[in-house]
Amino acid sequence: MKTDIEIAQEANMLPIKEVAAKLGIKEDDLELYGKYKAKLSDELLEESAKNPDGKLVLVTAINPTPAGEGKTTTSVGLGQAFGLLNKKAVLALREPSLGPCFGIKGGAAGGGYAQVVPMEDLNLHFTGDFHAITSANNLLAALLDNHIQQGNALNIDPRQIVWKRCLDMNDRVLRNIVVGLGSKMDGMVREDHFVITVASEIMAILCLADDVADLKKRLAKIIVAYTFDGKPVTADDLQATGAMAALLKDAMKPNLIQTLEHTPAIVHGGPFANIAHGCNSVRATKAGLKLADIVVTEAGFGADLGAEKFFDIKCRKAGLKPDCVVLVATIRALKYNGGVPKTELSAENLDALKKGIVNLEKHIGNLQKYQVPIVVTLNSFVTDTKAETDYVENFCKERGCEFALSKVWEKGGEGGIALAEKVLETLENKESNFKVLYPDDISLEEKIETIAKEIYGADGVTYSAAAKKELQRITALGMGDFPVCIAKTQYSLSDDQTKLGRPSDFTVNVREVYASAGAGFVVAVLGSIMTMPGLPKVPAANNIDVDDNGTITGLF
Amino acid sequence: MKTDIEIAQEANMLPIKEVAAKLGIKEDDLELYGKYKAKLSDELLEESAKNPDGKLVLVTAINPTPAGEGKTTTSVGLGQAFGLLNKKAVLALREPSLGPCFGIKGGAAGGGYAQVVPMEDLNLHFTGDFHAITSANNLLAALLDNHIQQGNALNIDPRQIVWKRCLDMNDRVLRNIVVGLGSKMDGMVREDHFVITVASEIMAILCLADDVADLKKRLAKIIVAYTFDGKPVTADDLQATGAMAALLKDAMKPNLIQTLEHTPAIVHGGPFANIAHGCNSVRATKAGLKLADIVVTEAGFGADLGAEKFFDIKCRKAGLKPDCVVLVATIRALKYNGGVPKTELSAENLDALKKGIVNLEKHIGNLQKYQVPIVVTLNSFVTDTKAETDYVENFCKERGCEFALSKVWEKGGEGGIALAEKVLETLENKESNFKVLYPDDISLEEKIETIAKEIYGADGVTYSAAAKKELQRITALGMGDFPVCIAKTQYSLSDDQTKLGRPSDFTVNVREVYASAGAGFVVAVLGSIMTMPGLPKVPAANNIDVDDNGTITGLF
Repeated sequence: MKTDIEIAQEANMLPIKEVAAKLGIKEDDLELYGKYKAKLSDELLEESAKNPDGKLVLVTAINPTPAGEGKTTTSVGLGQAFGLLNKKAVLALREPSLGPCFGIKGGAAGGGYAQVVPMEDLNLHFTGDFHAITSANNLLAALLDNHIQQGNALNIDPRQIVWKRCLDMNDRVLRNIVVGLGSKMDGMVREDHFVITVASEIMAILCLADDVADLKKRLAKIIVAYTFDGKPVTADDLQATGAMAALLKDAMKPNLIQTLEHTPAIVHGGPFANIAHGCNSVRATKAGLKLADIVVTEAGFGADLGAEKFFDIKCRKAGLKPDCVVLVATIRALKYNGGVPKTELSAENLDALKKGIVNLEKHIGNLQKYQVPIVVTLNSFVTDTKAETDYVENFCKERGCEFALSKVWEKGGEGGIALAEKVLETLENKESNFKVLYPDDISLEEKIETIAKEIYGADGVTYSAAAKKELQRITALGMGDFPVCIAKTQYSLSDDQTKLGRPSDFTVNVREVYASAGAGFVVAVLGSIMTMPGLPKVPAANNIDVDDNGTITGLF
Repeated sequence: MKTDIEIAQEANMLPIKEVAAKLGIKEDDLELYGKYKAKLSDELLEESAKNPDGKLVLVTAINPTPAGEGKTTTSVGLGQAFGLLNKKAVLALREPSLGPCFGIKGGAAGGGYAQVVPMEDLNLHFTGDFHAITSANNLLAALLDNHIQQGNALNIDPRQIVWKRCLDMNDRVLRNIVVGLGSKMDGMVREDHFVITVASEIMAILCLADDVADLKKRLAKIIVAYTFDGKPVTADDLQATGAMAALLKDAMKPNLIQTLEHTPAIVHGGPFANIAHGCNSVRATKAGLKLADIVVTEAGFGADLGAEKFFDIKCRKAGLKPDCVVLVATIRALKYNGGVPKTELSAENLDALKKGIVNLEKHIGNLQKYQVPIVVTLNSFVTDTKAETDYVENFCKERGCEFALSKVWEKGGEGGIALAEKVLETLENKESNFKVLYPDDISLEEKIETIAKEIYGADGVTYSAAAKKELQRITALGMGDFPVCIAKTQYSLSDDQTKLGRPSDFTVNVREVYASAGAGFVVAVLGSIMTMPGLPKVPAANNIDVDDNGTITGLF
């Protein structure tokens, strides 16, 4: 069987200008990065703003399991299927992070015969967007420490610095460090931390900003520290806004690539789906809506994190109105949720399926609260039996959802025709009455409780003393009307990653709260969230290579 | 008066494919990065390898002073002048580092009407080469610490880790840090250090590697640490070679941009000129020689560091044979060397000029040892008097050097015609009998002493005990035949930056020695060398901005 990278490398890519032409984009509106990648010019985005909007389809999934769900693969395959049906469709996807490529997990380019290409470029440096974010993030950090070194006119309390440095690398020893050792000229000693670049607030900001003017407004508001008397110090106080924006100017432009079947894919931005909102940039989604009739997009992790934030943060803030949600599950993952160990998922097991399908049921119920029509799709495996898929199909139909099997991993767009037709039917016949889960003007505590109860199924919320205090400070600072961005495990609807299926009789505990003032949301952390991954015993890096012809192997 | 960035932004750039066409490069051999930047394909480099070599002209300078010399400006202006004379000429230059843009100094794009453009791109992320080096450098560091975390099978002594992390940022607090704090899962605690990306050995390697195969051989040999029993641990021992090479694959391709007058400029790589060899990549220089009749290149800092390393490291290792050296000076800098304070350089002062010209004299004498014909050029300022320039002209002619005035900052290529004609005359009429300063097969100590005595004018060399010991270890490890790369202050021929002119009666002290085993040279450090700069009281970043149209201001 061919690996993903082998399939990707055999792809017969079209020059990106031909892919762009499918969306009516002229070569002059492309900034080429080699033959197969391009950025969309600001002029194109401005000009196309007058076009009517296409339809917006969100692809989300049940809670992720080691069995695999294939959310990105389904998104890409659905896009390819629309292409086969001669629809003017475009994908809007996140850029993958470089760090994890060298660890355990590969990138986010889809899989099998449903991938976006060039896969190696996308997974390595791509068009440099993440490097630009790393630079802007670390410039702000350097300016902050330099301000303290040069006299600390702003009265910054070194114990209350909240801005962290970042690298797009899995590097556990940088989680907790001490900087500024040496002599007087080597800075003030303090504790510091690195996060992975996708966890930088600048990533979230880039993905929510409308344009460079809005980007600058948001960058200016970033809270980097508090003074000895408790006042927030912003990036603008450090006179960092303009230089950061200059570094991010090109990164603000959405990137265009293609699927294995030449469907256009706008791939732009990629914030964490726990401490941030987990969606590609607003600019990419909006560009897609203006340039195509259908935009297929996705959100990180399962629907409890990804879809909730897509709706309650991204759509709320950007004024987007989704028309259809595709909810991805697999028979294997549902059986895993029903208690079957990973090694035994290939055997038919209707009892486990019935037990585990409560996870899907809860996500269906959750998504229905947003009043957007739902299509459930099963990403097929050869081990799935007819009895199992029939059971899931009936289960979904009984709950008012459309249903379709998807075989895009094996068959590409052809394997997604059934799903694409179901989505088209839905777009034509079912109305979306999208509404957010909660209004802006309830308290931050009420917002957290609404999500915890309505989406996670919790009985209630408890808070650490520090979290309580920080919620008060954030509200007093005028950010009480922000939406909340909850960081919790992606593996369970609850905050306990061992609780599969549909947990009940639990409360969640908010350990920590902080404001992402530039991004415009308040982060509430349930449990402990890793913002700088580590490398495993045998890193994937050990097997990555490039031969004398420049062909890369070992990426997956 | 217009600023450099204003002049650059008014430039009427040609599409880079038209610039490439001047060198006979087809569009298909370019990997475009927008309209005005491109990488040269591996195929082009392979195909053109059969072409005869053009002439190689090195631009170097006297020791840098606060008065300014304008080495890059002269290089660019000379290239522009060749263009006006209808010569098929190309520039081969270093890429500037991002970090210093936000500190005091601007980039390295030339100045006035002798600049390479697009200036903002070049000074910010350009084509991502430096970001790729940062990533490869830090992947190696992460793999090293992960190896220790996962059981340390290689028996690495954490006290003898010599590999450092890097960022392309001026960030003093990262010079000396402690990493690995926290819990068991957060790594082993140890002291660590960040350097600026241009100081990474990977930068030097990229600039000396012939192709991807050679790159991999060099990366494999990098010494990252020593074991508890004193044996070197290499990047290859950590199985890091392939993944690093994959990250550097595109960065290995030279970049093509243009001057304000559309002269092609290959801009690629930019290692420090103290702890590394300070020249653009071998690939860029060789590509230039195959694609043009004349290549104008430069080396970092003054001739004692830049030209010495260009000859004794780059030319020796790459088999290059320079045909002419242009030695840049200014009346102001010579007067500064003669003891005139910076504020009084505008007044005619022949006495000071005569006193300070010994610096130029020593550099002329040094360059003559390499038996390459020399053209001295004065980068003109309006305050220079005829008596002053006449004096310098006669001084040079008496020493067998050609001489020309250069007014390229003010007049662009037109201001460089006299210099270009003098260089053409030299290339036609004077033979280069280039030879390196010392053979491979003398000891490392003898090499250091040869450079110190012959080039710096020192009476002798002393060594710290640690340096002595390390020279023994390096020799025992089989690296005794490497050339030496001396890191010392650029401001003086001696190792004392306050000694201007032509210091005598001094010895130099080698404080530290280490092997850059992948780059293939041994670094000998005289005094203390800063490998991670800091930001000043008022960083340039404070004044950098980008407006709503994407126009960047404040870069210089």
